[in-house]
Formats: sequence, C-alpha cells, structure tokens
Amino acid sequence: MSTINIIKIGGNIIDHEARLKSFLKDFAALEGPKILVHGGGKIATEIGDRMAIVSQYVEGRRITDAATIELVTMVYGGLINKRIVAGLQAEGCNAMGLTGADGNCVTGQRRPVAEVDYGFVGDLVAGSVNKDFLYSLLESGLTPVLAALSHDGQGAMLNTNADTIAQEVAKALSAQSKTRLVYCFEKGGLLRDIANEFSVIASVDKQQFAQLKKEGIISDGMIPKLDNAFSAIKAGVGSVAIGKAEDLHAIIHGGKGTHIL
Amino acid sequence: MSTINIIKIGGNIIDHEARLKSFLKDFAALEGPKILVHGGGKIATEIGDRMAIVSQYVEGRRITDAATIELVTMVYGGLINKRIVAGLQAEGCNAMGLTGADGNCVTGQRRPVAEVDYGFVGDLVAGSVNKDFLYSLLESGLTPVLAALSHDGQGAMLNTNADTIAQEVAKALSAQSKTRLVYCFEKGGLLRDIANEFSVIASVDKQQFAQLKKEGIISDGMIPKLDNAFSAIKAGVGSVAIGKAEDLHAIIHGGKGTHIL
Repeated sequence: MSTINIIKIGGNIIDHEARLKSFLKDFAALEGPKILVHGGGKIATEIGDRMAIVSQYVEGRRITDAATIELVTMVYGGLINKRIVAGLQAEGCNAMGLTGADGNCVTGQRRPVAEVDYGFVGDLVAGSVNKDFLYSLLESGLTPVLAALSHDGQGAMLNTNADTIAQEVAKALSAQSKTRLVYCFEKGGLLRDIANEFSVIASVDKQQFAQLKKEGIISDGMIPKLDNAFSAIKAGVGSVAIGKAEDLHAIIHGGKGTHIL
Repeated sequence: MSTINIIKIGGNIIDHEARLKSFLKDFAALEGPKILVHGGGKIATEIGDRMAIVSQYVEGRRITDAATIELVTMVYGGLINKRIVAGLQAEGCNAMGLTGADGNCVTGQRRPVAEVDYGFVGDLVAGSVNKDFLYSLLESGLTPVLAALSHDGQGAMLNTNADTIAQEVAKALSAQSKTRLVYCFEKGGLLRDIANEFSVIASVDKQQFAQLKKEGIISDGMIPKLDNAFSAIKAGVGSVAIGKAEDLHAIIHGGKGTHIL
C-alpha cells in the first residue's frame, strides 16, 4: 500500500461551511489511501447551550458527564461526521464515518478518577486502534472519517482527543505501511514570531524544539501538539507536519507548514 | 452465505433503555449474517423541542427543513445509532453504524415538490441500496446498523423511512442470498381484534389481507406496513414477519408474530 495520509482537522475548519467545503475538495483530491480525523469545534458548545447543557472545563478539557457524552456523540458522531462524509461523497471520495464503537475501531480506557473526575473521557493505549479493520476499509478503497470518540467496549462512548486519535491511528498503521500525519490548525505552522504569520519555521528537530522552548518561542498551546508530533515520529510515523488546512497539498509536498524531523 | 436476517426496530424499543438493552442482547445472539435498521423514536422530537426546533407533519410525515435534517442526522445518525452500536459491541456483536452516506450505502432521491414540499426527504428506487458494500461488510463478519437516513450524493443527508430502508435492503440482498425481514413494532403481530393482544393472526396471504381490509379488521396504520411486506415477498425476500421486538427469536423460529405468505 502506498503512503497512508492521516489528516487531522479542528474547529477552525469545521465551524466554517465554506472553508470546510474547500478543505473537503482538497482532501478528496489526495491520491492514495487516506484517513480523516476530526474534532468537534464550537458546534457542540452551541448546541449544548441551546439544550441548556452546561459545559464544564478543567485545564482545557471538557468534563464529560452523562448529558455531555450524549451531546458530543450526537454532534461529533452524527452532525459533523455525516456533514463531512456526505460532503466527501459529493466530491467522489468514498468516505465512511466512524466512531470508536463502529467496527470496534478505537477502544478507549476510561480515565481513572483522581483529583478530577473527567467523566466519560477515554484515553488511548497501545492496541487501542483496530488496525486490521482500518486496513480492510482502506483496501476496499474506502476513506475512514473518524470522529473524536472512542468506546469502552462495555456500551459507553468516550470523549477522546482528536489529536491523540490521529496520532495513535498513524502509529498503529506504521507497523506495516509508510504513513504521513498532518495536523491542520489555525496557523501556517510553528511561528518564530507569534505576531508574524510569515515566520513559519519550516522544520524542527528535537534539539531545536528544546532550544525554542527554552527561548520561550513556543507558546504553551503548541507544546502538547509538538510533543505528540515527536512521539509519533519516534513511534515510526514516516513524516509529521503541522500547518493550515488551506495548505494541505503544499504541506504534503513539503512547501508549507512545519515539518517534524 | 446463510440466510441474512434484516430486522427493523422502531420507537417503542428505542425510547426505552431497558427494552433496548434486552433487544440488543437478543439481536446479538442471532446466528449468521444480520442487519439492523432503526428509526428515530421520540428522542428527536424531545431534543428538537429543547433546541426550539418545531417539527411540522403532513400526513404523518415530518417536514424536514434545514434545521430538522441537522436534528435527525444528529439524533438518528449520532445519538441513537452509536447507542445501539456501542450496546451491540458490549454484547460481542461487531456492529458498524451507517447512514446512507457512509460507504455510499443508501442513495435517496429527494422527493419532488408537488402540493407539499417535504424538504430533505429521500425516497428510494431500484439501485438505491449499495448491496456490494453491504455484502463486503457482512463477509468481514460485521453487522451493519442502519439509521433512517439516506444521502443525495451531492452533499445532503435525507430523512428516509426506516421501514422502506429495511425493505429495500432486504430486496437488494435477495438477488444473491436467502433473506428474512422482520418488522418489530409495538404489537405481537396483526391482530384480529385490536383490543385483544392475544388475537394475533399467525399468517396472512394476499387474498386474506384483501378480505381483512374489506372487513375493516386491519387498522389504517397497518395497511402501509403490510403493503410493504407483500411488496418485499413479491420482490424475492424469503420471508417477512411482523411482531414484537421482545419476541425476536420466537418470530424467527415461526412461533410468534404474523408471517406474510
């Protein structure tokens, strides 16, 4: 199988109809096997507000009580996932929407309750991703579209970070195939100067990353993203890049984004 | 492939957590290839109410405007579909949730606007069901779980009657396989006396159906269900029965429900 592209998109694309449509066109045009992983964007919060479900956050993570897991299952697994799948079908890409429960695709472990009870939140471990199942879909010419949801195997859905799902999927497939992982976010890549959109650092290795952290150039929000990226490279993912969804093809061809070395 | 069971469940099961759990256990225990088709129940209306989306009906059919198709995509394709899929996974059944868009599984035709504009409602025609795709899932040991949603192939989801999806899936698979179609609903079958739960008519052929209609024994609500059932038999579905979800195994073994001849 030729290189498998695993692309993760976030709220800045999902929340904008025109940008999403344009991204789906670009994604559909990617040749070879590919997988899309998506988060939830602001839509879950908006719909939660309309339903008077109050979202609580601790350290940037949503506390997922029973009402909230139903909300995110509806919104991530239903509304957004099917919007993406139907949109890709319209572009001639044979997409197949999945949560972790479908085909037992991604099994999460409910986070142990320590100081905080995060509720229905799933963490991933080695073996969480059902790679044989993903391979069988890819081999049939299907394009898996994964929502940020795993399941616990005992009937419960679990809210699971989309970056983590993308990373674990890429790692799992790297045992047998060449893989490329692209995290799309709101910036053109890692910026040397946060105020300057054009200061994208084209590539970064672990040593440079440590140096940039030391110099305070990397913002707090970027650190877990880059930690994830280096962890993916270490686990055998062929290439990892970070950049704008609008630049998808240029990132893949190496002309844009920040490439992790 | 041994006989494929296609089972349709409706609101009376979906709306009750304990009944749904019990049904999923029974369904998971069915041997051989199987497909579950589910409607939406009252949950979509309840969530719509909470979101202040007003459901309009004409002749018993929901008018599906832009807000309503988003609502039913969330609720049928997300909340209910994943509740069923995760529940089946917990019973050891490798379920795979699908809307019509996933794997281009069921393509609907948007209903032409005549006196009423039904909005995003899809009707099915010959060829609407992607049977090769369903076969490939069944052959991999997966159990497709279909929500009552088709897509138009141009990016829009379409609200589609679950009875019709079940019937068209059964018809499409009958070309190559033996099939059995079971419609589960709130009664034990076709009743000779609507006030008497024990007056189930064990079997009915087309002539008897005509006679029962003439005598006014069959209620208006049952007529389209039975018309569908006879149409399925005519199109080659091996057997068709109507009964209670609680009696699933007994219906399949011929001891309960109404069997269409």
